[in-house]
Amino acid sequence: MANEVLAGMNSAAINPDIAKERLKATFNPQELTYMLDGGKENTDRRKELENLMFSDPAFCLKDSIYLSTSELYVSTMARSVKLYRLKRDQNWSEKDLQLALRIIRDQNCLTLHHSMFVPALERLASEEQKERWLPLARRYQMVGTYAQTELGHGTNLMELETTATYDKATDEFILSTPRLSSIKWWPGSLGKSSNYAIVLAQLVIDTKRHGMHPFMVQLRSMVDHTPMPGVKLGVIGQKMGGNYNDNGFLFLNNVRIPRENMLMKNAQVTRTGKFLTSGPSKANYATMIYVRVMICSWSFGALAAASTAAIRYSSVRRQSTLSPGTEESQILDYQTQQYKLFPALASAYGFFFIHKVLSDKYQAMMVDMQSGNAKALPEMHAWSSGMKALVSDITVYDLEICRRSCGGHGYLRAAGLSDMVCGATPLATVEGDNTVLYLQVARYLLKQIAKALTGQQTTGITQYLSMNEGSYVCPLQRPADCRNVEFLCEIYKKRAYRLVLKVAQALQQDMESGKEQAVYMNKNLQPLVRMATAHCYYVAMRSYVDGLTSVQLSAPARKILDKLCCLFGVHYIVKLSGDFLESEAIGLEQLHWLQDLELQLLSEIRPEAVTLVDAFDFHDETLSSAIGCYDGRAYERLYEAALKEPMNQTEVDPAYDKYLRDLIMEGAKSKL
Amino acid sequence: MANEVLAGMNSAAINPDIAKERLKATFNPQELTYMLDGGKENTDRRKELENLMFSDPAFCLKDSIYLSTSELYVSTMARSVKLYRLKRDQNWSEKDLQLALRIIRDQNCLTLHHSMFVPALERLASEEQKERWLPLARRYQMVGTYAQTELGHGTNLMELETTATYDKATDEFILSTPRLSSIKWWPGSLGKSSNYAIVLAQLVIDTKRHGMHPFMVQLRSMVDHTPMPGVKLGVIGQKMGGNYNDNGFLFLNNVRIPRENMLMKNAQVTRTGKFLTSGPSKANYATMIYVRVMICSWSFGALAAASTAAIRYSSVRRQSTLSPGTEESQILDYQTQQYKLFPALASAYGFFFIHKVLSDKYQAMMVDMQSGNAKALPEMHAWSSGMKALVSDITVYDLEICRRSCGGHGYLRAAGLSDMVCGATPLATVEGDNTVLYLQVARYLLKQIAKALTGQQTTGITQYLSMNEGSYVCPLQRPADCRNVEFLCEIYKKRAYRLVLKVAQALQQDMESGKEQAVYMNKNLQPLVRMATAHCYYVAMRSYVDGLTSVQLSAPARKILDKLCCLFGVHYIVKLSGDFLESEAIGLEQLHWLQDLELQLLSEIRPEAVTLVDAFDFHDETLSSAIGCYDGRAYERLYEAALKEPMNQTEVDPAYDKYLRDLIMEGAKSKL
Repeated sequence: MANEVLAGMNSAAINPDIAKERLKATFNPQELTYMLDGGKENTDRRKELENLMFSDPAFCLKDSIYLSTSELYVSTMARSVKLYRLKRDQNWSEKDLQLALRIIRDQNCLTLHHSMFVPALERLASEEQKERWLPLARRYQMVGTYAQTELGHGTNLMELETTATYDKATDEFILSTPRLSSIKWWPGSLGKSSNYAIVLAQLVIDTKRHGMHPFMVQLRSMVDHTPMPGVKLGVIGQKMGGNYNDNGFLFLNNVRIPRENMLMKNAQVTRTGKFLTSGPSKANYATMIYVRVMICSWSFGALAAASTAAIRYSSVRRQSTLSPGTEESQILDYQTQQYKLFPALASAYGFFFIHKVLSDKYQAMMVDMQSGNAKALPEMHAWSSGMKALVSDITVYDLEICRRSCGGHGYLRAAGLSDMVCGATPLATVEGDNTVLYLQVARYLLKQIAKALTGQQTTGITQYLSMNEGSYVCPLQRPADCRNVEFLCEIYKKRAYRLVLKVAQALQQDMESGKEQAVYMNKNLQPLVRMATAHCYYVAMRSYVDGLTSVQLSAPARKILDKLCCLFGVHYIVKLSGDFLESEAIGLEQLHWLQDLELQLLSEIRPEAVTLVDAFDFHDETLSSAIGCYDGRAYERLYEAALKEPMNQTEVDPAYDKYLRDLIMEGAKSKL
Repeated sequence: MANEVLAGMNSAAINPDIAKERLKATFNPQELTYMLDGGKENTDRRKELENLMFSDPAFCLKDSIYLSTSELYVSTMARSVKLYRLKRDQNWSEKDLQLALRIIRDQNCLTLHHSMFVPALERLASEEQKERWLPLARRYQMVGTYAQTELGHGTNLMELETTATYDKATDEFILSTPRLSSIKWWPGSLGKSSNYAIVLAQLVIDTKRHGMHPFMVQLRSMVDHTPMPGVKLGVIGQKMGGNYNDNGFLFLNNVRIPRENMLMKNAQVTRTGKFLTSGPSKANYATMIYVRVMICSWSFGALAAASTAAIRYSSVRRQSTLSPGTEESQILDYQTQQYKLFPALASAYGFFFIHKVLSDKYQAMMVDMQSGNAKALPEMHAWSSGMKALVSDITVYDLEICRRSCGGHGYLRAAGLSDMVCGATPLATVEGDNTVLYLQVARYLLKQIAKALTGQQTTGITQYLSMNEGSYVCPLQRPADCRNVEFLCEIYKKRAYRLVLKVAQALQQDMESGKEQAVYMNKNLQPLVRMATAHCYYVAMRSYVDGLTSVQLSAPARKILDKLCCLFGVHYIVKLSGDFLESEAIGLEQLHWLQDLELQLLSEIRPEAVTLVDAFDFHDETLSSAIGCYDGRAYERLYEAALKEPMNQTEVDPAYDKYLRDLIMEGAKSKL
């Protein structure tokens, strides 16, 4: 019978429950796919690359769960090298490369070369240096990384401890790791892959410190990849996720490099040891902002993947029943399951639009900056910091909810969700820990509210800080008003205004009472985070609405996306209702309407849910989820995945011969 | 210089920042350690076992991060076998064994044998069967597991699909897996370790079904451990955590077992195929409750460990500064860091007391049940379900907050926190998914409120459902009242009452309006979860206060624990303020007092924080956290841990020879 049961496994049938789901949608998923890809031609190109890449087993991802960390690194290197050969041989554009990286979920161990090393050269090297190094880097003779963070310092870059001391006698810099806490620690591709690094170090000339500057340091021989003299490096060890990358450490024991290896675009050291600087470059800020914008996009991708897997699985999993005596219900039919999954789905679409708005703003700023106008920088810095923090916070939280909504199976690596959780959770930490970012937003808001309180009109996204609060009337006058997303924006605005005002007043009071700044700032640090978060929710909701308005859509597609946008807005008012009641943005009556509407929206989204995640159009291999594949054959794929497990290749595990047999045999003997 | 820098690493010095922290406490941590262990003699015994076990490398845990899953299983088997030999040779009590398991954080692959197989035999087997099997099990000749969950069914046990069909002709049962979804899936120790399983299966006699019953099935030969005929089994594959255990699958292809292998205490099948039953046993419920009580204890352990690691690390990590121009600040000094960590610390202590109260109640119920009085069962079922759900929810959430509070290093497996997160997150899923458990609590509450609304006085923990809501006056009349934990309990009670009442009324209305039950129940499923959660917060706060009151403590120890208890109460009112405002348990003025008090409590707990986690008294090896050791030498240990990484045992990784070299050499050639 085993064979009969298992024979059905290889059929190409689609699970009938998920097939039925696809008949329920009121819109065409392809329309949304094109929108998400940025047009039909991009979708076509993506599918072309998917076909090309996934016909080669080196690009397949889902079997990587069977590898040890060392094996995973080797197989990732195979994939990375193939990828860059493809790029070279097929003359891919940068956009193609980005697409290809998305297709393999960035499971590449030479990422830093492209994302940091080459861009840093372009930004920080002099023309002469670019001429010297860029060609080597572009043909992978130099494989590089960017070494900034140290064991003892991440957030506070000014206190990095690695030194680059100028030796006039030899016209060299001496790179040195003075203390254990100064070891470079974390850079991707550093441990095993790179032969060069741009190292951030304190410039020292005649014992005088001149701040952090970038230096080109050779790490490994270009002939046999052995470490250079004085260079001690390796991997920092296993991580919660992302073990395909050799994040590394670097210990520099008086490593000498020629003076010309300081990247000299923004600052120079002359032969006589004179330090010249053109001041800090605004381009550095722009790069920082760019990465934060990208994190919103990665968050979108992660949440889209997790909601795809969880919603598809919830449509094929049946458990218990809503009506006693009938067939077991699809778990997606339970309101509690919808309550877990649909806000995550609404956020996934939301983050697409939030990223779109942010990215458009960034592009506009870059155009301005090239013509010397950096006026948009402060707002853009606060905006991108805030969206990075809020979007990644929600993503990390919702990913785990999606994973847990799949019950025990969500805990299996083959189901894919646990790797999504473990892989995405650093988004809340990297490129500015979220708490630190909220505090940066808070600083910007304090400046703006100070303006507003002295009668100046604030502009841009903080225009609302000049509001006349006395004239606020809750825009929700009857239940139907709750579906109006513009009204919801007003409510988010009111909440943010009140919280910002409250903290600003508290700080003012503390200052006037003569308290030390360090004391009163720290006393208000958590309230500052809270007010910044409130502002970020407003920006997120505003961007969701604006982004959605800006795209061309058919009526049915717009109708369902409007519902998701509304759910996003309503969900966080209800979830954080204390803030909204406290700031008198809504009253109890409005809260009850919103609570009812949230549940109502869940049932309206229910029939469209599977098609909404289909529209994300993940290739099964990219998704790498046994329970989330397009065909809905969750059990078949889980079982197949288990059979591939290395431990299942032998009937009796070596642990038996080594240890267990003796325990059992002693038991048998003691009987005799 | 490298050598000089690294030479200091092996010193036995204690980090000076953490040493200073220990001078600040107002209480003696040993007093709390004794309380947590249940008395000095238990602490002494624990230290004795720790010394005994950790002098043997087989019991050491922290190096397990370097092993592949297959290697991890083998090393865990070595540890498990040693453990059971020690137990046997040293004649350990059951309490000793439990202690030893706690010391090795349950990293044992024969757990199910002890926690399920033997207890199930004791509970479900007839006297004759016990005589036959228990001696074999106790001397590990039989190594067993308990196979219940299937690929397609977890929560809804009634629909498990495995069948046990009685064959009158041969006086045997035929065990069978009719469909792919019926494969037994998840049982611990099943894949590779066990040679026997108690299998839950649908009893079928003459095509008639008689429900789920337990059957003893031999899985593997007692001579060479090869699978028995018709038995196909293996591991289910890698999990997000807990990979030391061989959770397995089991496919039964018409496996025949003698009729006597049905566990016959509660039901019997006679030779002629007659089915006799003494009805479902209440003992089964008791076991279920017992495991839920235990989960509260495990949650306490997990949160205690995570807060130990995060708080110790936060005392030695310095980053940025609160007062410009001064030394960098310990990150524990930032209010935002305290806001992340101290509620987790308060919960850890709280869960100790919540478990204590629950466990005492359970013991009392068991005494009653032995004298035939099962009156306490329904309340105890709801209580344990609710505490399991709430306590594990908070634990899983706070563990990740603790991990993230350690920044990038929290993502390293050597730091220990990521394994804690990944290892503990199933607590929210196993033994009843939390959503399902909240709904069970809700069911109980609906029964009780129905009583109350018809004028009957409710008793026990739901006594408050008979409250006269009209007479409620918020007990917080001035800011100082907020420190009164009895007042906080009143507020939690009021919130729960209002939410329960609201849902009960909504259901009543829906019912009276003639809606179908399936429709109106599902329409209110999320509100039911919400009201149950509110009740659980009340029970948690009540138990925290009662548990803390019940222990003997010196004045300084009581003072600091009172503050933690107060912080717990205040934190969740502030965090969930919407609920409390909505239910009119507090007003805006009270909310502001509570918000201020929460921040005030953080600063009061700050100087005691390190000593409070020292009191948990984790052995460094049990904690397995490079950043959380007693000596505070976080950077030294992270670096040491990295050096042990297998990939760091060679200077040039095999990935270079296999793939990277060619890419680099092609680049070099293209230059020529």
